[in-house]
Amino acid sequence: MSSAGAPPGDPLAIICGAGNMPYRVADAVMGRGRRVVLFALTGWADPTQVSRYQHYWARIGQLGRFRRIARQEGCRDVVFIGALTRPAITQLRLDLTALMFLPRIIKAYAGGDDHLLTRVSRIVEDIGFHLVGAHEVAPEILVPAGRLGRHAPSERDRADIAVGQALLAALGRFDIGQAVVVAGNRVIAVEAAEGTDRMLARIAQLRRDGTLALPAKAGVLVKAPKPTQDRRFDMPSIGTRTVEAAVAAGLVGIAVEARGAVTADLDEMVRAADAAGLFVVGIPTNEQARGQP
Amino acid sequence: MSSAGAPPGDPLAIICGAGNMPYRVADAVMGRGRRVVLFALTGWADPTQVSRYQHYWARIGQLGRFRRIARQEGCRDVVFIGALTRPAITQLRLDLTALMFLPRIIKAYAGGDDHLLTRVSRIVEDIGFHLVGAHEVAPEILVPAGRLGRHAPSERDRADIAVGQALLAALGRFDIGQAVVVAGNRVIAVEAAEGTDRMLARIAQLRRDGTLALPAKAGVLVKAPKPTQDRRFDMPSIGTRTVEAAVAAGLVGIAVEARGAVTADLDEMVRAADAAGLFVVGIPTNEQARGQP
Repeated sequence: MSSAGAPPGDPLAIICGAGNMPYRVADAVMGRGRRVVLFALTGWADPTQVSRYQHYWARIGQLGRFRRIARQEGCRDVVFIGALTRPAITQLRLDLTALMFLPRIIKAYAGGDDHLLTRVSRIVEDIGFHLVGAHEVAPEILVPAGRLGRHAPSERDRADIAVGQALLAALGRFDIGQAVVVAGNRVIAVEAAEGTDRMLARIAQLRRDGTLALPAKAGVLVKAPKPTQDRRFDMPSIGTRTVEAAVAAGLVGIAVEARGAVTADLDEMVRAADAAGLFVVGIPTNEQARGQP
Repeated sequence: MSSAGAPPGDPLAIICGAGNMPYRVADAVMGRGRRVVLFALTGWADPTQVSRYQHYWARIGQLGRFRRIARQEGCRDVVFIGALTRPAITQLRLDLTALMFLPRIIKAYAGGDDHLLTRVSRIVEDIGFHLVGAHEVAPEILVPAGRLGRHAPSERDRADIAVGQALLAALGRFDIGQAVVVAGNRVIAVEAAEGTDRMLARIAQLRRDGTLALPAKAGVLVKAPKPTQDRRFDMPSIGTRTVEAAVAAGLVGIAVEARGAVTADLDEMVRAADAAGLFVVGIPTNEQARGQP
């Protein structure tokens, strides 16, 4: 594993979306003695945080600008990290280099998110860079295995987790869903384009208006990478905000695949979960999911 | 099929939830010369519509009251029809007869909606009634096969419909989902506890706030009964409101399993779809779904 030995001599290019994750990764990489160059995506990356690092601003689609600067800086390895919602193809600000790839970009859009990301990663590699996973250069962001806080899942919660994992495995081949909520053996929400936070907000709303009649505390959020997912890009992530949304949705806990999800603020998240009486566990890889095409 | 021959001599008990469907069924059954007795569920059935028929009001859980009156009226066959969201077990107003079944009712709650309905139906049969499907006594409510309005799905829409059907088949064994939305080979929403109308409202919202970047008109709603579903109870239903919600979500069409879904207002729905440029098609049964356990 590259992170275990001495860091490569070339600086790491980090393409930064929203949230704290890019800076957590940058700090971890710098802590290992490797230089970083941030490419902050306009409208997504946080200007205050970005300003603490050597950085360049870029718009999504400015492939030529990225290639030119990253080469000048001597970067070969590239990390994509941080939240980003899929832009409409018409919203892209494609520069000349990107326009050369337009037919491939159009094809990339004909499918789910994995499909899009896989094709974008191939374009990045074709212009001479090597895409690496943020968790490969900064393994400290991976969610560890086992019980992470004070609270533990009950037998019933474990049964709900198993249902959730089986469902995520079945959804995997449709390139959707990193998360579902199961309560008392009943699947109450499945995430697709809306993302985990909105799915949890929906449960809170359905409970408030009486559409979803559940005990006061019920339901487990189960999160895992898709079986087909390219982990260099789009690892599921959890954090303090996930805990807050789960509490607002009246859930009893969160189960994420250990080393199959990332977090920018493990300690803070665990404190929030402990305070709210929520369990957070890193669960073993879903073997059923691995076995699927 | 009982509906084809002469109607049985005993009146039909119709337990009525929300919406127009109960009265559409009652009219169809009366049109065949059979008497109906409506059991209007308080808080769900429409008092104005109910008043046009011989009826009794009852709360969910008043099993003894239902048994007594239905016997007095000479009913043997019972139909459940109309919208109803799953009540919390603590919200049930159980009468003495229902309390005798409490252990079974508690067990019925430990699972998805099919599980609950299957167990409730067994209780109804155990107290001496015969549960029949609304579509068996009123086949005119079934959505027919083929193109139902002026507009037809494109090749791409047909591909999206196929993805949706395959996904619904995969979801079936988890006892969730009668509906998904697919746009350009990408699954953008999966229905669980929220119901179809809310799922469509979510897409409209995600489009408005820019989270979901899609062409102005994109996406097909695909609806089908679960493979395991007891069709005597819980057939998926569509109507004018579904068309309105699909239009608001920017979809191009609706595909429902022919004779696997019901509608109270086919003509009105088709007129609304035609006016909005939306296609509505009755699609063949998903063979993959049928083959699953």
